[in-house]
Amino acid sequence: MTNIVFVGAGSVRYTIKLVGDLARTEELHGSRLVLMDIDEERLRATEVLVRKYLSELKAPFLVESTTSLERALEGADFVINTALHRAPGHEDGYVQYEITREVGERHGYYRGIDSQELNMVSDYYTLSNFNHLKMSLDIAKAVERIAPNAWILQTSNPVFEITQLVKRLTKAKIVGFCHGYAHVFHIAKTIGLDPERLDWQVAGVNHAIWMNRFFYDGKDAYPLLDDWIEKHAKDWKPRSPWDVDFSPAAIDMYKFYGMYPIGDTVRSGTWKYHYDLETKKRWYGEFGGIDNEVERPKFYEQLRATRRRLLELAKEVEKDPSLELTKVWPEVFSTGKESVEQHIPFINALVNGRKARLVLNVENNGTIKGIPDDVVVEVPVLVDKEGIHPERIEPDLTDRIKKFYLLPRILRMEWALEAFISGDVRVLQEILIRDPRTKSYEQTLAVINDILNLPFNEEMKRYFLKKSDINSK
Amino acid sequence: MTNIVFVGAGSVRYTIKLVGDLARTEELHGSRLVLMDIDEERLRATEVLVRKYLSELKAPFLVESTTSLERALEGADFVINTALHRAPGHEDGYVQYEITREVGERHGYYRGIDSQELNMVSDYYTLSNFNHLKMSLDIAKAVERIAPNAWILQTSNPVFEITQLVKRLTKAKIVGFCHGYAHVFHIAKTIGLDPERLDWQVAGVNHAIWMNRFFYDGKDAYPLLDDWIEKHAKDWKPRSPWDVDFSPAAIDMYKFYGMYPIGDTVRSGTWKYHYDLETKKRWYGEFGGIDNEVERPKFYEQLRATRRRLLELAKEVEKDPSLELTKVWPEVFSTGKESVEQHIPFINALVNGRKARLVLNVENNGTIKGIPDDVVVEVPVLVDKEGIHPERIEPDLTDRIKKFYLLPRILRMEWALEAFISGDVRVLQEILIRDPRTKSYEQTLAVINDILNLPFNEEMKRYFLKKSDINSK
Repeated sequence: MTNIVFVGAGSVRYTIKLVGDLARTEELHGSRLVLMDIDEERLRATEVLVRKYLSELKAPFLVESTTSLERALEGADFVINTALHRAPGHEDGYVQYEITREVGERHGYYRGIDSQELNMVSDYYTLSNFNHLKMSLDIAKAVERIAPNAWILQTSNPVFEITQLVKRLTKAKIVGFCHGYAHVFHIAKTIGLDPERLDWQVAGVNHAIWMNRFFYDGKDAYPLLDDWIEKHAKDWKPRSPWDVDFSPAAIDMYKFYGMYPIGDTVRSGTWKYHYDLETKKRWYGEFGGIDNEVERPKFYEQLRATRRRLLELAKEVEKDPSLELTKVWPEVFSTGKESVEQHIPFINALVNGRKARLVLNVENNGTIKGIPDDVVVEVPVLVDKEGIHPERIEPDLTDRIKKFYLLPRILRMEWALEAFISGDVRVLQEILIRDPRTKSYEQTLAVINDILNLPFNEEMKRYFLKKSDINSK
Repeated sequence: MTNIVFVGAGSVRYTIKLVGDLARTEELHGSRLVLMDIDEERLRATEVLVRKYLSELKAPFLVESTTSLERALEGADFVINTALHRAPGHEDGYVQYEITREVGERHGYYRGIDSQELNMVSDYYTLSNFNHLKMSLDIAKAVERIAPNAWILQTSNPVFEITQLVKRLTKAKIVGFCHGYAHVFHIAKTIGLDPERLDWQVAGVNHAIWMNRFFYDGKDAYPLLDDWIEKHAKDWKPRSPWDVDFSPAAIDMYKFYGMYPIGDTVRSGTWKYHYDLETKKRWYGEFGGIDNEVERPKFYEQLRATRRRLLELAKEVEKDPSLELTKVWPEVFSTGKESVEQHIPFINALVNGRKARLVLNVENNGTIKGIPDDVVVEVPVLVDKEGIHPERIEPDLTDRIKKFYLLPRILRMEWALEAFISGDVRVLQEILIRDPRTKSYEQTLAVINDILNLPFNEEMKRYFLKKSDINSK
């Protein structure tokens, strides 16, 4: 029997999505699903919804739930980590981000101190998010201790930094998951190509991947993309704040770097595209993308509304077991084909040898030339019973992608990890000194001081001030 | 007979210094010295002074001079390149820098666009200095063609970028020279150690080297340095704008990076030390170092005054051959021991097998771990008749030096080379977008436009605008 643990199951929606994929994967029927969350109410609701959804789909699984990470991990084969750190007294993890960002903005850091050049995706905090990195590392250490052979499927962001951190500091087997690669299909469909006839690759690091290969019926399809851009890019309009695949920013990056940026990569350009909302609108269309003061709060509110509705639905199901989730809310409780998430195909490939081509975050070891071996890269891999086999990246990424985008992004990861691992507050200062928004040394002291003094950062403050006094340099 | 060519001999003073070293190296007596410069007047003066100085030192050399690079290179064994590009109508190469810097400052770039974080040494332009890079590359190509077995001793700055550029684009044998390592001895003497009893190493890239090894009588001498800092650093005062070995900036860098920064490395810290003259004075003492609006113009004026005096002296010698240079100006026409320049020991080692331990800029090839093989690094080497043998770097540089200092500096070199090689004006913009002083995309367009429109940048403008139009992006 395969034991699959959902850590942070109470975020609800993600768990439901993966449970749907499990239900549709007959070879995994009969597996044991362990739902774990520290929030009892949400955990209970998730369990109710999962059981009901599975019964509607007639998919037999053993479902358990626990608030104890240690108990959940006993016998685990796969640990799907979607957990986000939540400060006591707050509704969700995003509240921490919003408060921390406000502190940054007060000190002149538009979108907060973590929204730096080449790391614009503004909900993936690394510098100020000690709590979440620490929690993610602690979960990995528990896996290493209790279920040393289990795979961690790292799902919550920042996938790059967390996967790398866990690789550096534990022996746990960890792989980073992201569905961003799927934008390749959106791009193909938009320009009128059948995704089935594509021969494609993407490579880079998480949220920083580029379409190095794009063939259609065996022929280079980049000229088709160029044609489409030439003819249609000027009429492009985003259908949502997330719809940036053909934004002026994406096309500008493509023209400079020489290969097409995929998914969140487009959001992670330099300040050129991000100085202010007006700049963002020029480069990402009328919404200015998702990473701005108007759209992101709306998105958080949507997430909250969805979760509130799910929690209510759990209560309704308990009262009235005849209620059918797949009819009431089919967008969430899907009866259709698999999601774009790669977790269940990954598990099925390792457990049952059902070969799967996935895009995963694994150690480089020569896969992308010119990137250090131990860096976690996002590349296409074949997964089978023997393990994970990265594809040969062909053609290689351009020099500009490596030197102007990937290597600077990798350095930023290294800096964030050095800050976290050393607990040396001077590293935080040093990183901010290099931020284009910093005007003085005093500004870095002030913003770090205010962030360390946030009520939910007590542990962070103790950790960072243990060796050095921020004010005595 | 060994043929030693001085390209840019008319900068006079540097030539005189190396000629003094040659005179003191008896094994090289009888060699042929070819002085080359495009400025006939200065070349003639240099020749007069060199002949007179050599005769006073009773050192027999064959001295020739020519304004033709091609003729100078015929039969060359060693090409000492001290040439600096000079715009027509201007007194020296520094005038270009001063004008270009003024343009940068008008657009909000304090100390000019090339004075960037981690590349503060403000006379070593890379971005805006197309003319000098192009001239240096052309000299190397001429060597490759006319004297393919000759060594180029690259002396004019930026040594890092030029040496790297020539390695990438030609087959010429080039080695970069800098005397910055010698600050190790100043540091040792200051804290009361006899340099003879030191076991030391430095490693990094040019103007970015760190004292990875510092032993005294076989024991770690860093504790002695720490002691001295603890007791005396607070009373430190600079004796000149160049005297920064024990400045608060040096000590701050040492404490953060974990090894002592050597020579110009101290000048090349982040903006933390450089925001404005007041900040510079806080970190570099009363002069604020050499890289500021007060001291650097004075330094240029000194250089010019020295050269003017040398040109006058040449005329006086022609009129009155009994005049003795070594008596009139012994600081320049030294009769004492060798200078700290490494050129002549390098030549003597290769020609006569007189082994020499030097600090040179050569391809890394694994010497510093974690730095790409093809990057030109500055490391201690043994030179003998067989060639250049880098020492094993032990202990390794700290992770912080690599990740927060060397790798960012190396990326900056790569960016500058990509701009120069591609001739793509967008690369210049992209580099400026990442500059902490840039506030908008329009600012980068404006400053680049004004620099390209400087009268001495006509060739640069044609080159950079051949493919792309700066205003049509």
